[in-house]
Amino acid sequence: MATAPLSRRDLDFLLYEWLDVTALTGRKRFAEHSKETFDAVLDLSAEMAVKHFAPHNKKADAQEPRMLPDGTVELIPEVAEALRIFGEAGLVAGQFDESLGGMQLPAVLARASMAWFQAANAGTSSYPFLTVGNANLLVAHGTQQQIDTFVRPMLEGRFFGTMCLSEPQAGSSLADITTRAVPRGDGTYRLTGTKMWISGGDHELGENIVHLVLAKVPGGPAGVKGISLFVVPKWLVNEDGTLGERNDVTLVGLNHKMGNRGTTNTLLNFGDGTRTPSGEAGAVGYLVGEENRGLSYMFHMMNEARIGVGFLAISLGYAGYLQSVEYAATRTQGRAADDKDPASPPVPIDRHADVRRMLLAQKSYVEGALALGLYCAKLFDDQETAGGEEAARAALLLDILTPIVKSWPSQWCLEANSLAIQVHGGYGYTRDYDVEQFYRDNRLNPIHEGTHGIQGLDLLGRKVTMKGGAGLALFAEAVRATIVRAEALGGAASEYAGQLAAVLERVVATTGRLWGAGDPAVALANSSAYLEAFGHLVVAWIWLEQLLAADGRSGDFYEGKRAAARYFYRYELPRTGPQLDLLDSLDRTLLDVDPAWF
Amino acid sequence: MATAPLSRRDLDFLLYEWLDVTALTGRKRFAEHSKETFDAVLDLSAEMAVKHFAPHNKKADAQEPRMLPDGTVELIPEVAEALRIFGEAGLVAGQFDESLGGMQLPAVLARASMAWFQAANAGTSSYPFLTVGNANLLVAHGTQQQIDTFVRPMLEGRFFGTMCLSEPQAGSSLADITTRAVPRGDGTYRLTGTKMWISGGDHELGENIVHLVLAKVPGGPAGVKGISLFVVPKWLVNEDGTLGERNDVTLVGLNHKMGNRGTTNTLLNFGDGTRTPSGEAGAVGYLVGEENRGLSYMFHMMNEARIGVGFLAISLGYAGYLQSVEYAATRTQGRAADDKDPASPPVPIDRHADVRRMLLAQKSYVEGALALGLYCAKLFDDQETAGGEEAARAALLLDILTPIVKSWPSQWCLEANSLAIQVHGGYGYTRDYDVEQFYRDNRLNPIHEGTHGIQGLDLLGRKVTMKGGAGLALFAEAVRATIVRAEALGGAASEYAGQLAAVLERVVATTGRLWGAGDPAVALANSSAYLEAFGHLVVAWIWLEQLLAADGRSGDFYEGKRAAARYFYRYELPRTGPQLDLLDSLDRTLLDVDPAWF
Repeated sequence: MATAPLSRRDLDFLLYEWLDVTALTGRKRFAEHSKETFDAVLDLSAEMAVKHFAPHNKKADAQEPRMLPDGTVELIPEVAEALRIFGEAGLVAGQFDESLGGMQLPAVLARASMAWFQAANAGTSSYPFLTVGNANLLVAHGTQQQIDTFVRPMLEGRFFGTMCLSEPQAGSSLADITTRAVPRGDGTYRLTGTKMWISGGDHELGENIVHLVLAKVPGGPAGVKGISLFVVPKWLVNEDGTLGERNDVTLVGLNHKMGNRGTTNTLLNFGDGTRTPSGEAGAVGYLVGEENRGLSYMFHMMNEARIGVGFLAISLGYAGYLQSVEYAATRTQGRAADDKDPASPPVPIDRHADVRRMLLAQKSYVEGALALGLYCAKLFDDQETAGGEEAARAALLLDILTPIVKSWPSQWCLEANSLAIQVHGGYGYTRDYDVEQFYRDNRLNPIHEGTHGIQGLDLLGRKVTMKGGAGLALFAEAVRATIVRAEALGGAASEYAGQLAAVLERVVATTGRLWGAGDPAVALANSSAYLEAFGHLVVAWIWLEQLLAADGRSGDFYEGKRAAARYFYRYELPRTGPQLDLLDSLDRTLLDVDPAWF
Repeated sequence: MATAPLSRRDLDFLLYEWLDVTALTGRKRFAEHSKETFDAVLDLSAEMAVKHFAPHNKKADAQEPRMLPDGTVELIPEVAEALRIFGEAGLVAGQFDESLGGMQLPAVLARASMAWFQAANAGTSSYPFLTVGNANLLVAHGTQQQIDTFVRPMLEGRFFGTMCLSEPQAGSSLADITTRAVPRGDGTYRLTGTKMWISGGDHELGENIVHLVLAKVPGGPAGVKGISLFVVPKWLVNEDGTLGERNDVTLVGLNHKMGNRGTTNTLLNFGDGTRTPSGEAGAVGYLVGEENRGLSYMFHMMNEARIGVGFLAISLGYAGYLQSVEYAATRTQGRAADDKDPASPPVPIDRHADVRRMLLAQKSYVEGALALGLYCAKLFDDQETAGGEEAARAALLLDILTPIVKSWPSQWCLEANSLAIQVHGGYGYTRDYDVEQFYRDNRLNPIHEGTHGIQGLDLLGRKVTMKGGAGLALFAEAVRATIVRAEALGGAASEYAGQLAAVLERVVATTGRLWGAGDPAVALANSSAYLEAFGHLVVAWIWLEQLLAADGRSGDFYEGKRAAARYFYRYELPRTGPQLDLLDSLDRTLLDVDPAWF
């Protein structure tokens, strides 16, 4: 891939001109930082992503991980090499405490840094991505000993982390997991069960793999209230930090996927007796926090992972957008609509209206989504470091936006990848170009870390109703503040503000109408339509924010922002009309259908 | 694939209960046929597709065609075996004259027959699909000698056919092809040039390959008016029908695609001097019809191929739909929204509203598209055999519907495949299931045989304005006739009729408004939105037709039709509102954007 996978110019705009992340250096946690250190991280990330991650992206796709007869996993060697360099640069530890060897980077910078790697090579970037999430959870909920034993080596790039939730029979429904954890009496547990879809679940990339495993302690409550969380390392770790016996965690098989092939995705057995450390049955596990509170801890990691999945979708969409822009500027075909002379030379295809539509649509999706992602990451920083009321408000707003930042890019940046293929024509459908891989890689994102449908239920069934609707009210307040600023500007901004206000008030009214009917089944029947309408509202708001940040500035970059905002308001936001009409009608089509009719 | 790739029950409904294809046997050409012979063809197709095409669908995808050092192409042996059986069953010749060894099947039956094979194995089905199109063109425009020499062996399954239009530098813009054909003075031509994206362009499946090649005769008019059409066989054919010298057609390389991998897709050199039959430079070609009229002949094949691409998209969508229905009925996960007891057993996922949404959406897309495809095939039969005014009307209606039957299934049956993946969750993203392949295979369809954007320009720039708008008027008349019948029924049909009438009148008004503005660039700027709104209008009409055909009948099958129609009118048709608003606004966003802003 010769084209840059991401736009540094856009990142600079979003981080510095819009979100003013430099102001974060005024907070104690980030006091050692400055615009210079932020820039250095972004420069390093861009350089390393292009140099060490992008070059093996296609190869890792073509030569997917395979399980050898000895039960280990073979990956192309470039993956381990790239991750070694990534770890040595201190990027795994980026946002962690200095006391843990980290840089105490704001999350918004850490996300921007990681986005370069995700855009350059989705498969390889998943290993540190999962490791960071795992480490963050243990820092928040683990004991000091767990942090010292497992987190430190992860941050040094020596250990890798996973999250083990799903089982073959229990994906979206974690209430039904059957993995058991029996207390041994010495503070440790013995786990038995099978986990499915475990990304990074086995490989030889580092010294050890730290699994975070959901399991049930016998005698606990039924359903999600009886789920506990355990650290289960692939290799037991001695007190001095050296590796001990092999734990009874066995790779049963690899899943062979349509895309995202560079990431091993595994079926793992825990405690099937393949190995019995200390001669006892079960995989050795260490409880995190308290029994039966595992799901709430895991949500710490899942919420973070959901933002990360959004960024993965964004990054893939962005990489495809940039490639199709370049292709459309250089590929010639046909003539202008008003040129009837067949002897005139063909024009670059970005002169054709329909190609411009496909480029502008992609731009509005990927830049809108990137802005949303960074905004959410900044909210995370505010939640953690702003203190007081501001932190509480940031947490609430982030809570309501999490299903959006996960689902909206997963839907629309995938659509962007489809448009990137279309811009390339037949060439885009071949493996000679990158865009078909982006499309395959991105198709994962509406599935994992909570499907699209699960996000809709989370938003409509929980997030907008929680705390008496306080989250929705706060969101509406934030949008209205933007509207007021935009109205003051006049022109296009004011026109869009009017549109945005109308959709916002409709969404608020529709929410009330859905829950006012008194029947949860009816209220939730069309939660996917609600999620999608809400998502377009959010991204329209984010585009208006970008337009305000670009106000008064001239040049191609800012004109591009204005064109994409115009596209979003003219072509995209109106899609919400029929969705909200449907919701307002309390439609029962999905409830009334009998499965026998399919 | 254990699930049937297509629904015979639905075909019976559409063919017999709705389109009344048995009535075609009253026409002279089809007088030898009866419902029994039609059924026999459908039975045979279903059986052969399941037995000989489906089993190697995944293998052909995993082991794609490769070019051997000797320049030939290696395919898995199952492809040749399946095609041998297909040819021996007389299915290549199905709709051809008895005098050519055909069955004189109506096109609507031939399409339904082929759909089984397309659904079972898109890659393998492409070889006879292209061969039939090639043979049809030659029967219509070739000489008797060309028919005897090339068509007969194709219909016997011994030769295969291709269409060679695109070149590396000329895909959508055929005006810019540079392949030259020089008359030799003896009635033959010598061709030199390079053709790209040639499906079935080389292989060893039969005895010979018959290329239909667009080329320019030096001295002819510039642009599309100087394009001629030639038969260029891979092997020259002696007068007695035996194979002669190898023609100078050379396989340069295979394209490696995201999907549709079973079909060889090639870069071919014509007349590059690799072989020189008779010691002369250039590939030997035989003119079809007259010089400079090649594009109009090729449109004969392209129009047919466009309907065929629609069917390919439909078939893949249908196969994915049926698999996801079965999966959703057997996979258990979670509980009903009103069941709070974690100890109750999990339910099949088709009990969940959002899964039902994904199943109903697929059903409305694939059954709507299949009905549209068969309706268009029936129009083709009427055009060819109804005679007089009825034939002329059918031809006009088919002309306006061709961009729809190509583009709508390519967009929405692809979306159906995405939903089929989503219903399967993580499993659907793996190659253990079929749906990810359907999705990859189907992504080709918005690209080839005229991209989505080209179809939009064809519909809005040509089809709705031709003959003073006669095609649009005839279409509107047909839709209004359905509306009148539906209104008479009352109930849901009448409600939908009102919706349909409103959208129809809007589309007619919008068409006038677009062209009334007097600026073709503005009129055509949003032709893709026009195409998509028009497509939803057409399929809504087709759904109302199905609803009328199901009227008064009870049972799961008919309830399913009513539920899918309801879904389409509640969830889908309203999408046209914002699209028509955009078109009515004569929006200039795409015209005003400067490519430097991307």
